[in-house]
Amino acid sequence: MISEVKGGLTAVPGYRAAGVRSEIKEEGPDLLLLASERGPVPAAGLFTSNRVQAAPVQVSKKHLEDQRLGAIVANSGCANAFTGREGVRKARQMAEFAADSLDLKPGDVGVASTGLIGSQLPIDKIEEGIKKAKEELSNSWEAGTESARALMTTDTVVKEIAITVELEDDSKVTIGGAAKGAGMIHPDLHATMLVILVTDAYSTSAGLRTTLQTAADQSFNMTTVDRDTSTNDTVFALANGLAENERITKKSPSENFQKGLNYVTRELAKMIARDGEGATHLVEVRVEGAKDDEDASKAARAVAGSNLLKAAIFGKDPNWGRIAAALGYSGATFSPSRISFSLLGGGSEAPLVLKGEPLPDDAIDAGEELLEEEEIQIYIDLGEGEGSATAWGCDLSKDYVEINSRYRV
Amino acid sequence: MISEVKGGLTAVPGYRAAGVRSEIKEEGPDLLLLASERGPVPAAGLFTSNRVQAAPVQVSKKHLEDQRLGAIVANSGCANAFTGREGVRKARQMAEFAADSLDLKPGDVGVASTGLIGSQLPIDKIEEGIKKAKEELSNSWEAGTESARALMTTDTVVKEIAITVELEDDSKVTIGGAAKGAGMIHPDLHATMLVILVTDAYSTSAGLRTTLQTAADQSFNMTTVDRDTSTNDTVFALANGLAENERITKKSPSENFQKGLNYVTRELAKMIARDGEGATHLVEVRVEGAKDDEDASKAARAVAGSNLLKAAIFGKDPNWGRIAAALGYSGATFSPSRISFSLLGGGSEAPLVLKGEPLPDDAIDAGEELLEEEEIQIYIDLGEGEGSATAWGCDLSKDYVEINSRYRV
Repeated sequence: MISEVKGGLTAVPGYRAAGVRSEIKEEGPDLLLLASERGPVPAAGLFTSNRVQAAPVQVSKKHLEDQRLGAIVANSGCANAFTGREGVRKARQMAEFAADSLDLKPGDVGVASTGLIGSQLPIDKIEEGIKKAKEELSNSWEAGTESARALMTTDTVVKEIAITVELEDDSKVTIGGAAKGAGMIHPDLHATMLVILVTDAYSTSAGLRTTLQTAADQSFNMTTVDRDTSTNDTVFALANGLAENERITKKSPSENFQKGLNYVTRELAKMIARDGEGATHLVEVRVEGAKDDEDASKAARAVAGSNLLKAAIFGKDPNWGRIAAALGYSGATFSPSRISFSLLGGGSEAPLVLKGEPLPDDAIDAGEELLEEEEIQIYIDLGEGEGSATAWGCDLSKDYVEINSRYRV
Repeated sequence: MISEVKGGLTAVPGYRAAGVRSEIKEEGPDLLLLASERGPVPAAGLFTSNRVQAAPVQVSKKHLEDQRLGAIVANSGCANAFTGREGVRKARQMAEFAADSLDLKPGDVGVASTGLIGSQLPIDKIEEGIKKAKEELSNSWEAGTESARALMTTDTVVKEIAITVELEDDSKVTIGGAAKGAGMIHPDLHATMLVILVTDAYSTSAGLRTTLQTAADQSFNMTTVDRDTSTNDTVFALANGLAENERITKKSPSENFQKGLNYVTRELAKMIARDGEGATHLVEVRVEGAKDDEDASKAARAVAGSNLLKAAIFGKDPNWGRIAAALGYSGATFSPSRISFSLLGGGSEAPLVLKGEPLPDDAIDAGEELLEEEEIQIYIDLGEGEGSATAWGCDLSKDYVEINSRYRV
């Protein structure tokens, strides 16, 4: 029912994108422009819960008050965070330049920035960049990829995806997404990293928002790289209705559309975790048997976030005591004598603890072998109830420290 | 009024100590025995809030029910955590061996362990070690230092301190302490790392406990190395009354004794932070102007715990945006436009942000220079109220990762 298709944002009918160089970052494209061919369409946004909210977050919240967007402009290399009133003015200007070039109102434009906190946006460069991007707007898949590339900071790979999903009324909708991740990744509540999602589904803004929140709670909000919640986390979703499906509303949601969006957001979240700064492993933590889903979520996030466990995984050491310790401080309810956990990877499983009993050393040797895999899963059964959750993270490597100790990244 | 004196635990009249090798760790002393010459005396303990509680924590809580201890036995190299009923049996045996050798009841002995989680304690070695330690018990300062050395795991320096403090009735009491820290350091609520405190003050157990909790809340509970809360955190305090001061009780506490214990616990906490695994800087985070002390505490702990900021400090990069981001997710109330912060070190101050306004780059260059100092302070004024708090941490270095990626430390 869900099929991946080539490309990202521009795989969806009715959207054009461009990624250009505006000379904010030291090299590479650093400005994204996304335009809806239909003009303003129903849109939803999720923003960081950090008390220090970047200027573009403040401006985009305002622009989303009417729940419609016609374009998104985003830059990397400068977060425009903690930049005071001047920063807000510049974020507004950024929206104005994009609106002018696309014949929209400034309020129709979503704005996002990522990069160094505390320095002012070089607005002349942004203006030039927007002009250039306007000329290069295209619905080719290359343009979509280039626009996703323009979001990257310490990311090492472009993060984009597109799928088609059949809805209950036999219509087929397309969902495309682009994201940046890397560091300062520990979204909280209604927050996430920088993500743009577009679809041709026909939906009200409220229907889109509800679906988006559900999808984010089981994807971005379950991802951690370093337990640092950013000032700039932003997700935009636009739905232009070209698929002409039965309208999705808050009261009549589409389960299939939800599944499609879940898929897209989960895949993007995994790309972000896999490409965490310095990461050598993608670590999926699956918790089952929790008292409830909330407890499962606490447990999964604590294990995915433990510096000590992450360093052990980097060292390919199945140091399961650190799993037990992280579970213990997670706040989840469980009895140590009833929990079980194992490592999975490359198609095999290495049980480590069975109903509170550590397994003999040769079982642990199997765990060690398994940590040679790049993608591993830590499976935990808390033995309490029916709650479950999955979190994604990565290991903690010397390169994480190297990257983040470099001058003013 | 407070004077530091030479030594640690054995600087206090009425206590003898020994640190011996029982061959649990690969090298060096690994078993501490501390004996009160007066036999059981009023005692208090604080233990980890981690749901996975090590066997010695379970046993020591039991032994402290009568609020008296006559001896403490502790080992490094094996945490005896997540070891089931067998682990509890072995922790009890450890107390029994110590009690037998000192002519005490097992319930008079506090037990503590630190090291790898999940492996069983080699109890024969512990038994031999206790016999040897019994023979070496001494009140020389060297014996105190050797006992503190026996607590070390990845610690690189011995952590001990002793002070004398004059009480309100002109009596002079001595307080000595020994601690181990290094990794899995993020004590929570009534929890801390492994710390032993002894004094000759005359106090009820309840008076001692209250004083200890207050001291711990402003010292150990404000220290973080890696945001991982241990399964074994333990603080013991014994008060033998030899100083013959006016009795300290819960209802008639001694402010001076509190100050003395605050001093000792804060200095030990700083030693622990300074010697955090791989640390190259001791980082003190001082928050003032918070809505209340609790908010100040949240803010200080969040800043001290930020992986990103810690990596920047390792790289000597005054990346103050990461301070702002950590404050923002700390949960403390503040308005970004009213906060100020600066770096202090080596007697100079480098302001970074003044009432929400980032200072020009040359101010930041001063911050960069200041990060050459080994001990730095981050001073933050939230501009909200009268609340204040101090937290201690360290930087995040490649060595932290190296140490914790080594096989089964």
